[in-house]
Amino acid sequence: MVNVILGGAGFIGSNLVRFLMACGEKVIVIDNLSNGSKDFLPKNFPGELFFEYDLSNPLSSELLEKLKLLHNSEELTIWHLAANSDIQKGTEDFAVDFHATLGTTLSALNLATRIKTHSLIFASSSAVYGDHGDRPLDENVTDLRPISNYGVMKLASELVIQNYSVVNPHIKIRIYRFPNVIGLPLTHGVLRDFHSKLKSKPQNLHVLGNGEQQKPFMHVDDLITNMITLNSTSALNEVFNLSSKDDGVRISEIAEIMIDNFSPTTKPVYQTTPQGWIGDIPKYSFDTNKSISHGAASILSSRKAVEKVVAQLKSLT
Amino acid sequence: MVNVILGGAGFIGSNLVRFLMACGEKVIVIDNLSNGSKDFLPKNFPGELFFEYDLSNPLSSELLEKLKLLHNSEELTIWHLAANSDIQKGTEDFAVDFHATLGTTLSALNLATRIKTHSLIFASSSAVYGDHGDRPLDENVTDLRPISNYGVMKLASELVIQNYSVVNPHIKIRIYRFPNVIGLPLTHGVLRDFHSKLKSKPQNLHVLGNGEQQKPFMHVDDLITNMITLNSTSALNEVFNLSSKDDGVRISEIAEIMIDNFSPTTKPVYQTTPQGWIGDIPKYSFDTNKSISHGAASILSSRKAVEKVVAQLKSLT
Repeated sequence: MVNVILGGAGFIGSNLVRFLMACGEKVIVIDNLSNGSKDFLPKNFPGELFFEYDLSNPLSSELLEKLKLLHNSEELTIWHLAANSDIQKGTEDFAVDFHATLGTTLSALNLATRIKTHSLIFASSSAVYGDHGDRPLDENVTDLRPISNYGVMKLASELVIQNYSVVNPHIKIRIYRFPNVIGLPLTHGVLRDFHSKLKSKPQNLHVLGNGEQQKPFMHVDDLITNMITLNSTSALNEVFNLSSKDDGVRISEIAEIMIDNFSPTTKPVYQTTPQGWIGDIPKYSFDTNKSISHGAASILSSRKAVEKVVAQLKSLT
Repeated sequence: MVNVILGGAGFIGSNLVRFLMACGEKVIVIDNLSNGSKDFLPKNFPGELFFEYDLSNPLSSELLEKLKLLHNSEELTIWHLAANSDIQKGTEDFAVDFHATLGTTLSALNLATRIKTHSLIFASSSAVYGDHGDRPLDENVTDLRPISNYGVMKLASELVIQNYSVVNPHIKIRIYRFPNVIGLPLTHGVLRDFHSKLKSKPQNLHVLGNGEQQKPFMHVDDLITNMITLNSTSALNEVFNLSSKDDGVRISEIAEIMIDNFSPTTKPVYQTTPQGWIGDIPKYSFDTNKSISHGAASILSSRKAVEKVVAQLKSLT
């Protein structure tokens, strides 16, 4: 099996590359390096298996030819992790997620059509659900009402993949709805925001929103091991929520942890709005019973995941 | 008020242009002429108010400048009717609806942002609901599960427009979910299929599906008068189903009507599949109570709408 990782030089993608290589698997990376970097890839990653390419454009026949030569008639596992990761930017400019989050899905499906594919694994998001407050969200929730364009394009990607699966039922489909995933490298998100703001040891840490936002956080190591486990279950087409099994961590709690560790004299300053930005879901709760019942391993709590990243950051300095 | 009609040279668009001009309104048309034709526009339509432009591309500054000159600081009503109309083609090639059905929505929103806009009217579709069998579908149904890529891109368009409305609450939004709309010119759909097949007076009329598909049909004249009525209600943001108030007409019934009128010796031949094609919804039923309670006028039944088109076709020959 050959693994082709779309967005493989990004935060989650590069961690997946490291994991798969450690398992001795063959890995090809396609990435436009807009959020990712070649420096995120393992030092021993073979240069000829990396392709700098913007997958929001149609696949070029040149790229397809090169991939055909590399895969040696082995079947592909396509990991579609290519997407915009800046949800706020997508609210200001709808074109961002249209191209980077949905356009890349068309390329993933075209690749699956053009080169014999065993599995297509799609990184979807909690954002497809929209704002349901405290209600625990399981995979059978039908009222999907994303309030960010990022969430809209993730939902449209899921639906297009499901329609594709009707016509191509032999390809194994996994749709994983990610929670807030954290780890190194810090490319975006609240930990990066706080970490970069605290570098200058400021008097105040300005937090987006009132700090009461509460979300599940999952360490990228747990995310990857659980995807690997759930890929191997027999069903041909499954949707799974991936998350820590708790109600999440409050943003104010994360602010305190980060301040304690990186700038103890700084004071957090909150806004009055429950949302950190337009399109932000202040609180959500994932029901992860399905993934657990299919063998997902025990994982760090949201708070422990944050603490693990903090420890990783401290070991770097 | 200036009306800008995206897709104004298509089947529904050109009928809308005719109606608005008859009411003395100023109308600008933007169309790429992929499904539409300048010949569909009224003879007295001013050439300088027509722009051939593919709205699945970003708006050019040249087009924007020309529109700014024309609108004379009057506010715009944007009618977004630009879309792929060949649902089957979009199943084979996901790129079709990605560009023509969703990409055009980005252009509509960009236009609303760049030129002061009073109203944005979006032609959505019954296809956003997916396959719910006999269940009458009202606007509060939350489990929207489109099974065609056309439906996916109409749903994504609705959601992107709703997200836009959160940031731009002063723009009046109308989302109309169209049923099967029929009338002249016959550019696509079952009536055109049967009409063109019957021209040669064949022995058999080959029908897609088993003929039991049953759908509401609405005459384009009724569709337009009801949109005009519902635009003028006071609410800033509304979603309306538009349809005849009945359970629809069976495809076999339409085949019989068309045969009787255009080739009485032809025999219909059916397939065994309930769906006419992948992504086809064999049966759906629209609950139109909301639009009626907001003033939608009485309209032709589905069968009468078909008969009206047949009469129009016969008057042409």
